Amino acid sequence: MAPSPQTDAREKDHEKGSDPFFDACEIMPTMTTDNVNVDSASIEAALDQVSWNDQGLVPAIAQDAASGDILMMAWMNREALATTLAEGRAVYWSRSRSALWRKGESSGHVQNLKEIRLDCDGDTVLMQVDQIGGIACHTGRRHCFMYRFDDGEWSVCEPVVKDPTEIY
Amino acid sequence: MAPSPQTDAREKDHEKGSDPFFDACEIMPTMTTDNVNVDSASIEAALDQVSWNDQGLVPAIAQDAASGDILMMAWMNREALATTLAEGRAVYWSRSRSALWRKGESSGHVQNLKEIRLDCDGDTVLMQVDQIGGIACHTGRRHCFMYRFDDGEWSVCEPVVKDPTEIY
Repeated sequence: MAPSPQTDAREKDHEKGSDPFFDACEIMPTMTTDNVNVDSASIEAALDQVSWNDQGLVPAIAQDAASGDILMMAWMNREALATTLAEGRAVYWSRSRSALWRKGESSGHVQNLKEIRLDCDGDTVLMQVDQIGGIACHTGRRHCFMYRFDDGEWSVCEPVVKDPTEIY
Repeated sequence: MAPSPQTDAREKDHEKGSDPFFDACEIMPTMTTDNVNVDSASIEAALDQVSWNDQGLVPAIAQDAASGDILMMAWMNREALATTLAEGRAVYWSRSRSALWRKGESSGHVQNLKEIRLDCDGDTVLMQVDQIGGIACHTGRRHCFMYRFDDGEWSVCEPVVKDPTEIY
């Protein structure tokens, strides 16, 4: 097992009595479009800190960096996250196809990575992305969360921006 | 298997050539703090439309309704989602404790529900919440996504708002 990032961080907090990383991180620039300058040993160590589930996957949330809208949630395996970090774009693992899913490959609706985060227990990834084309959902909507619970039922509450037959 | 909300919606879209629900939903008010006026048969039907995984769970994302920040991602089983809908607050399923997890029960950091959505394939829930106390994370941070990937490593990039030993 990889060391728990949560434990490390909390120990550091307790040790120093505050949050020593925060100020430094605040002034860091957002990610460039690739991380080819980061050595592969660092990437492997970072991947080891993710708490992969028993299928070797981690859920990854994509948030629109401009609007703050949650665009979608999909899954990554180690290769998908490594590719996401290396290429600076969201690459998921398609559970139905058992293959890497380079978001936007057929639609052109690429998600360019602005920032990527991991949560306190290391088992969820959050990405800030630039959503090319303004459409994340295969139904032709801005994002996938199209059903809203109102009066006891799920109602469609997002407009179709573009007919999916024109996208694929 | 429950009918797929995705298929239903796309058929409706194709049938009518547009998005018949959107205008109506736009003017709907946000949720009240409970749904006790919704009959239980409706709730059961809505729960049937969720694509539960093989453990009977669905990932649920909590987004701060005011700031747009993603607060956390946790899991719900059928009972947790039913309770969330009935009580108008986020109730998760703790996989480690195998028990309902009424968020804020010990910390007071309740997540009051403003809106709840389901995604296109019915397998992810998104909640807009009012985060009581402004702290969602058990580490005493505003949200759980405390590690940012910078220069090849995960760095803590969120301040501790309150020492967790004072919360629990």
